[in-house]
Amino acid sequence: MARAITDEPAVGDFDFTRVLEAVADPIRLSILRQLAGAEEDLSCGAIELPIKASTATHHFTALRQAGLLHQYYVGTSRLNVLRVDDMETAFPGFLPALLNAARNT
Amino acid sequence: MARAITDEPAVGDFDFTRVLEAVADPIRLSILRQLAGAEEDLSCGAIELPIKASTATHHFTALRQAGLLHQYYVGTSRLNVLRVDDMETAFPGFLPALLNAARNT
Repeated sequence: MARAITDEPAVGDFDFTRVLEAVADPIRLSILRQLAGAEEDLSCGAIELPIKASTATHHFTALRQAGLLHQYYVGTSRLNVLRVDDMETAFPGFLPALLNAARNT
Repeated sequence: MARAITDEPAVGDFDFTRVLEAVADPIRLSILRQLAGAEEDLSCGAIELPIKASTATHHFTALRQAGLLHQYYVGTSRLNVLRVDDMETAFPGFLPALLNAARNT
């Protein structure tokens, strides 16, 4: 059974400055890009990053607490999925434009 | 005669992470919004901010050095204009989506 991590903001509580702070980092942009390009939810370990897993956790947490991704456990695996619809509701067009710009960097 | 301030990056040197760092601040989003809504280039003094002018200078510099705006002097007035076309060239759709999201915050 999946267990969600519940410290993510509701869509009505999204803070745009906080979203920008969360994404202003190459590691975090890489996480978002890989999730956007995946056909299924990805475990943290399935996302390739040039840092240690213990350091990566901090980046996943920043993205989750800003509302960019949802995390949940299946067994001992922590899975990640972008909150595409919630971001579109709060900031129309922003996440697609961000991902597009990040792809060229 | 107008004199440009020349430490801004060429469009080919734009760094997306730096752009995100520059805009991840309510004061700087307010500067961008006001410039986007203006019918002409604005002096720093014409942009309403809840901070002292001496503090505002730092924010204008961060935006200029990331490539978001161009500054130039006419006499002793420092004028500002968004680099809309350059941003569109480097990161298509990003600045409009950013300004739209910032308007709702």
